[in-house]
Amino acid sequence: MRVEKTEQLYEGKAKKVYGTTEETLCIVSYKDDATAFNGLKKGTIMGKGAINNRVTNFLMQMLEKEGIPTHFVEEVNERETIVKKVRIIPLEVIVRNIAAGSLAKRLGLSEGTKMKRPVLEFSYKNDDLGDPMVNDYHILAMEYATEEELSVIKSYALKINEILSAYLKDANIELIDFKLEFGKTTDGTIVLADEISPDTCRFWDTVTGEKLDKDRFRRDLGGVEDAYQEILKRLLGE
Amino acid sequence: MRVEKTEQLYEGKAKKVYGTTEETLCIVSYKDDATAFNGLKKGTIMGKGAINNRVTNFLMQMLEKEGIPTHFVEEVNERETIVKKVRIIPLEVIVRNIAAGSLAKRLGLSEGTKMKRPVLEFSYKNDDLGDPMVNDYHILAMEYATEEELSVIKSYALKINEILSAYLKDANIELIDFKLEFGKTTDGTIVLADEISPDTCRFWDTVTGEKLDKDRFRRDLGGVEDAYQEILKRLLGE
Ligand SMILES: Nc1ncnc2c1ncn2[C@@H]1O[C@H](COP(=O)(O)OP(=O)(O)O)[C@@H](O)[C@H]1O
Ligand SMILES: Nc1ncnc2c1ncn2[C@@H]1O[C@H](COP(=O)(O)OP(=O)(O)O)[C@@H](O)[C@H]1O
Ligand SMILES: [Mg+2]
Ligand SMILES: [Mg+2]
Repeated sequence: MRVEKTEQLYEGKAKKVYGTTEETLCIVSYKDDATAFNGLKKGTIMGKGAINNRVTNFLMQMLEKEGIPTHFVEEVNERETIVKKVRIIPLEVIVRNIAAGSLAKRLGLSEGTKMKRPVLEFSYKNDDLGDPMVNDYHILAMEYATEEELSVIKSYALKINEILSAYLKDANIELIDFKLEFGKTTDGTIVLADEISPDTCRFWDTVTGEKLDKDRFRRDLGGVEDAYQEILKRLLGE
Repeated sequence: MRVEKTEQLYEGKAKKVYGTTEETLCIVSYKDDATAFNGLKKGTIMGKGAINNRVTNFLMQMLEKEGIPTHFVEEVNERETIVKKVRIIPLEVIVRNIAAGSLAKRLGLSEGTKMKRPVLEFSYKNDDLGDPMVNDYHILAMEYATEEELSVIKSYALKINEILSAYLKDANIELIDFKLEFGKTTDGTIVLADEISPDTCRFWDTVTGEKLDKDRFRRDLGGVEDAYQEILKRLLGE
């Protein structure tokens, strides 16, 4: 595809987004920068950008085949990908199978407790407010999404959870929880956007329970780069 | 009714609950103790127990007439009332018409912003955890309530909001937000329990906007006792 980067539209904590010569497309460029705790902790994870780019594209293509529309169009190079330009719905959609992180703390559960059913959580995507948790009533009253959008997002999120959980289990990865973002393309379709990577998921080795995700960075567990590499290897065989 | 107090079953932050000679009934006794910020701030509001008892009973009787089942049975004296004994469903059900308190802060709204629709929030009632906010998925996965119970609670909460808002408006009181608790009686019926008082509601004068509720205590605004008295007077003419 002959699509060229034009101006930078946005620089986030983990990616840059560029306009392109095609009105309906963007190019995302993955950085090695890592942040945690709403930007309070900062660092670099060598090689992360390339890994997250590859892992995200791999999983999004797999999800597309399973019937989930995504923003993925084409990988350009190691850390850059052409995606459909979307208006991001300002919600972080969190899916949880096993209690960890903030959920474990808030509800007084020990990390590793299996939830009796998958739990969906929504945060209003707003760094200044610290991404506050919101429920359906907040979302509708504040018009973060319409009732119809919310219902599509919920059903995609639960379906993605089923597909990913089963897929990852075969690679000896337990999908503990993960964060999704959805957006509306220029033609109004809701698609899965942003990324699916060790930055945005909790991945535990199914046998040893070893953490293979950004918690190694958040909690100073060491072996951060190795964990990201291991996920790449288990999924893409590299 | 010949019902006598027996042993104290529970002492909470604002009330004591006693068993009675009738298996299915309790007596609640309202205290003048006031707490805020999950017990961090403590004090006394003179005459509060008697006022909250009268206001709660008055509003619960009004709600019963409008078709909402409540735990109210009979006022015994100034600060004590016979109620149906329930197993409390461990959720604080918060209904919000106008942004104030934690909602305003969390979503970055100025206090007094009207919500486009009533907002329901649920907190898991657990002092040790600081009553964390939960959504439908948490409630069902953690079995705080069943799907059926949750649906009954939501519909009662929204109906109570309509009835109370209209009723209070006639007394020049704007119902900003309030907290409810529901319980199951010995025969399995879901009823409104606990209290509805200036401790558990935000009441603003419709004309002046003056706060006539526990925020006067929380925020050291002075005139705390007078505000509680004023609510009693506007509702019961005393
Ligand atoms: N297809 C897309 N079109 C437009 N914006 C997108 C798309 N996919 C992701 N984004 C947005 O790109 C931004 C950059 O990503 P990131 O660095 O993760 O940002 P943040 O710091 O907000 O998490 C985010 O705001 C994300 O929502
Ligand atoms: N009808 C009832 N039967 C049994 N318990 C009740 C009933 N109504 C309220 N309660 C409970 O009585 C307790 C005492 O009230 P309160 O002092 O407000 O306690 P708390 O400090 O938990 O808020 C609360 O746990 C409340 O849930
Ligand atoms: Mg991001
Ligand atoms: Mg109470």
